[in-house]
Amino acid sequence: MPDNRIIEIFDSTLRDGAQGEGISYSVRDKLYIIKALDEFGVDYIEAGIPASNPKDTEFFERAREVSLVKAKLCAFGSTHRKNLQPEEDPNLNALLHAGTPCVTVFGKAHLLHAERVLGVSDNENLELVGTTIEYLKKHLDEVIFDAEHFFDGFAYNPDHALAIVKAAFDVGADCVTLCDTNGGTLPERIAHLTSIVCEKFPGKRIGIHTHDDSGLAVASAMSAVNAGASMVQGTFTGIGERCGNCDLSVIIPNLTLKYGMQCGASPVKLASLMETARRVSDISNIAVRPTKPYTGKSAFTHKGGMHIDATEKLDGAYEHINPKLVGNKRRLLASEVSGRTTVVELARQVIPGLERTSPETALITEKLKELEHEGYQFEAADASFELLIRKLACDYKPHFDVVLYKTTDDFPMADGKLQSSAMVQVEVGGNTETTASLGNGPVNALDIALKRALTVFYPVLSEVKLTDFKVRVLEANSTTAAKVRVLIESTDSHRVWTTVGVSHDIIEASFIALADALEYKLSMSENQPTNK
Amino acid sequence: MPDNRIIEIFDSTLRDGAQGEGISYSVRDKLYIIKALDEFGVDYIEAGIPASNPKDTEFFERAREVSLVKAKLCAFGSTHRKNLQPEEDPNLNALLHAGTPCVTVFGKAHLLHAERVLGVSDNENLELVGTTIEYLKKHLDEVIFDAEHFFDGFAYNPDHALAIVKAAFDVGADCVTLCDTNGGTLPERIAHLTSIVCEKFPGKRIGIHTHDDSGLAVASAMSAVNAGASMVQGTFTGIGERCGNCDLSVIIPNLTLKYGMQCGASPVKLASLMETARRVSDISNIAVRPTKPYTGKSAFTHKGGMHIDATEKLDGAYEHINPKLVGNKRRLLASEVSGRTTVVELARQVIPGLERTSPETALITEKLKELEHEGYQFEAADASFELLIRKLACDYKPHFDVVLYKTTDDFPMADGKLQSSAMVQVEVGGNTETTASLGNGPVNALDIALKRALTVFYPVLSEVKLTDFKVRVLEANSTTAAKVRVLIESTDSHRVWTTVGVSHDIIEASFIALADALEYKLSMSENQPTNK
Repeated sequence: MPDNRIIEIFDSTLRDGAQGEGISYSVRDKLYIIKALDEFGVDYIEAGIPASNPKDTEFFERAREVSLVKAKLCAFGSTHRKNLQPEEDPNLNALLHAGTPCVTVFGKAHLLHAERVLGVSDNENLELVGTTIEYLKKHLDEVIFDAEHFFDGFAYNPDHALAIVKAAFDVGADCVTLCDTNGGTLPERIAHLTSIVCEKFPGKRIGIHTHDDSGLAVASAMSAVNAGASMVQGTFTGIGERCGNCDLSVIIPNLTLKYGMQCGASPVKLASLMETARRVSDISNIAVRPTKPYTGKSAFTHKGGMHIDATEKLDGAYEHINPKLVGNKRRLLASEVSGRTTVVELARQVIPGLERTSPETALITEKLKELEHEGYQFEAADASFELLIRKLACDYKPHFDVVLYKTTDDFPMADGKLQSSAMVQVEVGGNTETTASLGNGPVNALDIALKRALTVFYPVLSEVKLTDFKVRVLEANSTTAAKVRVLIESTDSHRVWTTVGVSHDIIEASFIALADALEYKLSMSENQPTNK
Repeated sequence: MPDNRIIEIFDSTLRDGAQGEGISYSVRDKLYIIKALDEFGVDYIEAGIPASNPKDTEFFERAREVSLVKAKLCAFGSTHRKNLQPEEDPNLNALLHAGTPCVTVFGKAHLLHAERVLGVSDNENLELVGTTIEYLKKHLDEVIFDAEHFFDGFAYNPDHALAIVKAAFDVGADCVTLCDTNGGTLPERIAHLTSIVCEKFPGKRIGIHTHDDSGLAVASAMSAVNAGASMVQGTFTGIGERCGNCDLSVIIPNLTLKYGMQCGASPVKLASLMETARRVSDISNIAVRPTKPYTGKSAFTHKGGMHIDATEKLDGAYEHINPKLVGNKRRLLASEVSGRTTVVELARQVIPGLERTSPETALITEKLKELEHEGYQFEAADASFELLIRKLACDYKPHFDVVLYKTTDDFPMADGKLQSSAMVQVEVGGNTETTASLGNGPVNALDIALKRALTVFYPVLSEVKLTDFKVRVLEANSTTAAKVRVLIESTDSHRVWTTVGVSHDIIEASFIALADALEYKLSMSENQPTNK
């Protein structure tokens, strides 16, 4: 069903997203995120609540110096207090003082909430909304009104919910956003009520704001768009209160690729979707979930042998879109459920000309079998796999050797606590470097010491950051002598890669994965050691 | 829109879930998961592909000894090979040999896939499906047919897609599941095509199998149910190929609480939803995403000041359902209210007479809150929980003190390998004992040294054996400095118990759990130290 409408994209990562558990942004983080979102091409960036804390006040001051190509910044706040005139209300004035070209203000579209939470009557609530927007519009070109609890409010008292929307439009609101604040309304009902509003207010801009409490935020927002809404509010990576908001990194490709709509007044850069999601996630200090639609590492990854086999015979047999459209790529996993075909296919990503019958193929297959028997699993460790292939088939020379390492854990130290330390010696082109470090546990101490030693030769390694660390005990019914598999995810802000180590000793398993992570970074570009 | 239909729940955690990246189950893991799913009350458990690997063959053998209360186990496989008669096909015979009361078999409902991947014509494909099911039905009461790529196949060639469904029903398939294998079909189209099938085959059981590649798996499955499907296939926590499958832990409460449908032939235990999701996730070694609808830690957590304030004035102001319905609870981040009732209930298992108002209850609640904040979780660590309660409320005297311990890891040793060693000193009734040990890794060395030292005083400890060792990295987006939670399972051949330790240092976390495991054994019987 092609539909060439233009849908405006409104991002609230820095406001509703920041209300998610565990999320906290510095002013600097916020400045980075507005750049990333602007470059991707969203239309609006709701960036904070200026009245709520001094950090947001400072942010809006500094944001004025940032020139955005396309996005309009919005400050967010509530209707004025019932006992104050709008011009006396400090929160409204803080909103104006933020100096953004657009302001979002929310009011209650649920009569019970208005009565119980704000302590106002039906008419008082309508008046609050009207006087608030009227005052803001005197000073601003654009005011967006968020009708909080609109859908639940409609169920409780439809007349009041609709009257609130009307009150906002009557005094000049440029757009009214219908909010499913609690995330409990189903898509079919969202569609039905949105179409009622769109029919009642023809030609007006209607937005949709959904939450994921029923796992339906994207579906609900799409159903509202189908029913006539022309603006989607969400957060770029789906973070937000409780279960999060409508995930823009999912709904944007859905609307674009499945409906043929244009997202953004000028179109967003869909091919940068994955990169933008990673930038925003990195700054938010949360990992992109591997199974995330479109942008997850596993989104176009094939593990089952039958799937891999079919993919060889029919390109895209198990893909709903071409991964390149969103900046992602196809990955085939080497695992127990797949055979030699997969190995060749995988190895070809590293050595394009490799044949099924090449001697290298036999070598690689043999080695993989041996390593898998030892407990290695390369499906999640693309970087270790690539290094392995290069070493086996490409005469690859590692950038460093580890001469020795040593870790200790001592309990109790003078302060009565446990202390971990590590010592590492590496050799690069005949020169050695020995370093030591304390750490939060022996693996952390090793991580610091190893990187410190190698950065002396390869300053580029200072860009590498570990972003995830996973431990899996193999042979679950074994004891503390069981083997462990350690997976380490690293990033240099451009790329993300994963390495693996297996050993009976968790220290050794971690060290193998740590060393591989740094080797992989060096393998990506031609890195010559600097003189020590 | 109340609808009192009964929807069958079909879980594929152990088959499609196991095809998710990073998922790997031991036979023991699988046996635990079928118990957990059966106790929750799903109708079908698709548990593996018997032909694919020896692990699954072993699993189906051992599964025969497990008595399930409600769920039917299913083995999964494909239609027979085109050049073989069904009775000659090793895969089909492996399916029968699995000995499950029900079998799921899949065939291609997409003509292009049949031609290109299987190399068969239109008619040959119909015949493959027919002869496969006919053969299986000779030996089995129940055969479910999964029509792979049904929705994409319908777009490519609707006649063939429908003919495949007909071919399956004609030879006695008990249920046909329509699969959106690539996860790219939109809910409205899923609904439309499902209703076409339901109209064409009145009175037949139709299932729905969706994937989350567009972030719409739950919405799509719900739309199919609305259109007449009566069975939902998914995985309990949403794991699966690429972006995962329809998440049963989300769709079950949606269907139950929002549509009023009954999930499960006899209703599932909705109040155990959260606990079951955690059990399945723990065994899968993946964390429950905090923002997961219904079962996530943050699903009913309120952070924003305005939300907390409103929640005080209007109960549930920002909640779409009562969290208790799914075994979750409300959390306010500003003023965390711990579930005192739950604590009392748990503690009474150790101290039967304990009252809600006892001073001990306050003490226990306080301490638990503190430990949970540190990353402890006692749900899976019964023994550590019991020891904690005894120490806090029963004047419990530990049987030993640890004076010191020390571990080292050295690479390389003379043999070019890594060596781990540990030293431990314990004190019992004024006497100390110091021991040391080498080990396969520092934890194993500590385990041996600690038990050796204590057995001098308590010979009964020689009965204790560790049977499982699990490591979970907390704060998944953190680095090697992240905290780890170690769970250790021990047995003395009569009983099995689990202990927990948390620390930034994996050595310390393991040591805490190891020491607790031995202390627990001593606490079970009145153990007096023997003279040294």
